Amino acid sequence: MHRILLVASLCFSGLASAVELAPAPFTADQIATATALREQALRGSGAFAIVESLTTEVGQRMAGSEADARAVRWAEEKFKALGFDRVILQPVTFPVWKRGRESARIVAPAPQSLALTALGWSSATPKGGLRAEVVGFANFDALKAADPVTLLGKIAYVSHAMRKRRNGGDYNHAVGVRVEGAAIAAAKGARALLVRSIGTDSQRFPHTGVALSASQTTKDPEAMKRATKLSDGSYIALTAVPAAALSVPDADQVERLLRLGRPVEIELVIEAALAGEYTSHNVIGEIIGRELPQEIVVIGGHLDSWDLGTGAIDDGAGVAITMAAGAIIAKSAQRPRRTLRVVAFANEEQGVFGGRAYAAANTPAQHVAAAESDFGAGRIYRFDSHVAEAQLPAIRQIVGVLDSLGIESGSNDSGGGPDVSPLHALGVPMFELQQDGTDYFDLHHTANDTLDKIDPAALDQNVAAYAVFAWMSADLEQRFTVPAVRP
Amino acid sequence: MHRILLVASLCFSGLASAVELAPAPFTADQIATATALREQALRGSGAFAIVESLTTEVGQRMAGSEADARAVRWAEEKFKALGFDRVILQPVTFPVWKRGRESARIVAPAPQSLALTALGWSSATPKGGLRAEVVGFANFDALKAADPVTLLGKIAYVSHAMRKRRNGGDYNHAVGVRVEGAAIAAAKGARALLVRSIGTDSQRFPHTGVALSASQTTKDPEAMKRATKLSDGSYIALTAVPAAALSVPDADQVERLLRLGRPVEIELVIEAALAGEYTSHNVIGEIIGRELPQEIVVIGGHLDSWDLGTGAIDDGAGVAITMAAGAIIAKSAQRPRRTLRVVAFANEEQGVFGGRAYAAANTPAQHVAAAESDFGAGRIYRFDSHVAEAQLPAIRQIVGVLDSLGIESGSNDSGGGPDVSPLHALGVPMFELQQDGTDYFDLHHTANDTLDKIDPAALDQNVAAYAVFAWMSADLEQRFTVPAVRP
Repeated sequence: MHRILLVASLCFSGLASAVELAPAPFTADQIATATALREQALRGSGAFAIVESLTTEVGQRMAGSEADARAVRWAEEKFKALGFDRVILQPVTFPVWKRGRESARIVAPAPQSLALTALGWSSATPKGGLRAEVVGFANFDALKAADPVTLLGKIAYVSHAMRKRRNGGDYNHAVGVRVEGAAIAAAKGARALLVRSIGTDSQRFPHTGVALSASQTTKDPEAMKRATKLSDGSYIALTAVPAAALSVPDADQVERLLRLGRPVEIELVIEAALAGEYTSHNVIGEIIGRELPQEIVVIGGHLDSWDLGTGAIDDGAGVAITMAAGAIIAKSAQRPRRTLRVVAFANEEQGVFGGRAYAAANTPAQHVAAAESDFGAGRIYRFDSHVAEAQLPAIRQIVGVLDSLGIESGSNDSGGGPDVSPLHALGVPMFELQQDGTDYFDLHHTANDTLDKIDPAALDQNVAAYAVFAWMSADLEQRFTVPAVRP
Repeated sequence: MHRILLVASLCFSGLASAVELAPAPFTADQIATATALREQALRGSGAFAIVESLTTEVGQRMAGSEADARAVRWAEEKFKALGFDRVILQPVTFPVWKRGRESARIVAPAPQSLALTALGWSSATPKGGLRAEVVGFANFDALKAADPVTLLGKIAYVSHAMRKRRNGGDYNHAVGVRVEGAAIAAAKGARALLVRSIGTDSQRFPHTGVALSASQTTKDPEAMKRATKLSDGSYIALTAVPAAALSVPDADQVERLLRLGRPVEIELVIEAALAGEYTSHNVIGEIIGRELPQEIVVIGGHLDSWDLGTGAIDDGAGVAITMAAGAIIAKSAQRPRRTLRVVAFANEEQGVFGGRAYAAANTPAQHVAAAESDFGAGRIYRFDSHVAEAQLPAIRQIVGVLDSLGIESGSNDSGGGPDVSPLHALGVPMFELQQDGTDYFDLHHTANDTLDKIDPAALDQNVAAYAVFAWMSADLEQRFTVPAVRP
């Protein structure tokens, strides 16, 4: 009955073709199992309790901070408590950046303090801070085009126009100045870089995030001043000049003062430093496949957060969604053919260290599907994939089960989330369960990223979708593969 | 024609009585002038530019801070620029409380930092801070009822349930613990008081506000330890134990940890101190009445703010609304019979010092009407008064002109806003232009009280209402008086 209904629904939606008339990749029993998992998640997935526990009992868990190890312990215990078969700790080593005290104030023409935070990997100001006149730029392109003579000895301030979008699309453009701005400002003789927070809110929270351009990493020690040698033989440096973000209302304030036409002077204190290397862990919860345990479906989120908030939406939500999806499958009578791994990745925020370590330490060829939840706690609205053309009928069947969750079919050129993108590069089929991120950049990387911002029902919807996708991918008779590379 | 329309409208609204058939207190020409002022304000009152200037060019202006004098200078210059006839600076002396560094962190069972701010007039923690276990109370009554044995040496944390309301009504109840809580916690042996912020948001901004109970002021030096003698011969003391507010998400976090059942320990550092006395000024802009200059209508807001934000809604908005209303009247061809004063009151936040000084330094009997705008930048929805019964027809005519602004008639037992309440006690007729305060306590006394939260169109609606009310009150043939006191 299930199959008949499915074919009917495909006909009505205009997707029917000769392909659908061939035997469907998933059987009616498989569809029924996936549907039951979906409904179970919607009745209460337990994901909110997981993110509540993580944000309350661990709190912030910046990579390399004191809380990093507590978070790893938490994840290990949580996987066990949720009934996973096995928990694997996979070492991930990375350099550590430490935030210190930070403050800024306008000293002229109208003295007042500013809400500001250093960008990750910012260098420190000189002891006692620095004071300089501000030169404003409407956007990153204007900074790039600036005549160095105007910036010598000054603080460069860069604005931008970032709008809310469901897919968060403005971020990719806006974030450029956060990543590369300090190097460019420094090259033009500026003493510091201030940016309008890469965010869509108008609250007095500065947004942090990593400022680490290619110019800060090298294999050539001669080229690098201020660089620290890492155990892998590479070198890494802090930003060439201190770099920090103003909250949006403070950025508005600076822009208004600049428009008044009198010189605007700011005093900036940033204490920040490199603090050696640290070894954290990807924490992997496994549900061992009943027939093909060596073939793996991987889903996950990243366990680390920035230090300002408690990392509820970034990415406690993703960890909780995928853990809860795994837990439902672990407890199900219908274990899938293949192994399901839920990975709580280490240190995504400062350079996808966990995702890269995972790809390096595992055998990509064993992986038949990978997806990461790292875009907050909003509802999923679209299912994207990256599989061989011949496997699209299976994708359509998955979307058929997701349909009642309000999820539509998407593209087949997904690159995956950040921590699975290294697997993408190695030929692993990718999936993206696209979440509504309209409000994501209101909270992203701020002190305001806390548990109260999460809607438990939206989290359940996410879990339902991940459980369906993960179970079906792991139980599909013919494993997913990527499209053949066209010559 | 205007009068005919008015009578018709009163008949339709069911308010008609023998009284309305007598000659109306306001003539058709007066109604026409008031209507023209209203329409002029709606076309662009200039109020937003005033609050933009205040919050940008002065910023925070806590009473007694460096910015206090800058704010006074700003107000003086702004009144002149807006075309007021005369600007009067009236001295206001008060004790000064200074905020220093402040921080808090949970040290057990889950180390993490907390977003917290000292309440105004909090005492300091010992050098290096204090660390103690937290005892939680669901509300202020529970703290009052607590057995002292449970609190000895501990930190008292008090929650509450404050809901959003248009009239902000929950504040009056919720604020009790902020004002009186430290004294009660101290009397029970607690070492500090933490409160859930008196606010309706769920953002990571703690709400400050004054903590100054009757027990901290006295004429009896013997009864007062830690008290400072003021120039008026009275004594004032900081709170008996340090008192601070947690942001709502941080309060949630502490409550969740308390529910886990393990001891919750907090480390608290508050630097705060009394810093002598300061003399600021009420800044009064006058538009001199054409016939009865010695009779006064007073409107205003308070010039001081708390130090965390830039005091846009509290109370830059009130200052701007009333200044702009005055400016429209100042530039009008139809100057009113009586004098209109717009007052930017000094130090409302820490004890209505400006309002009390105004009442003491002026002759209340000369005042025929008083209203303060101190409830944010939301639209006005109701017009309350406190006048003699025989003058209600005039009130109904004023409401008639306000009607198209969406303003309804209200009660006749208004007590006025904070800075005019001392005039109320001395028999001055009171008016309240009630604003929609549904979101007011999202921002009140936080770092997030900044210009971007203000809707210029809503500000224009306020100015329209104040201009109508102020002009009509100042031009009414028979002056307003208060109801006779019933024996």
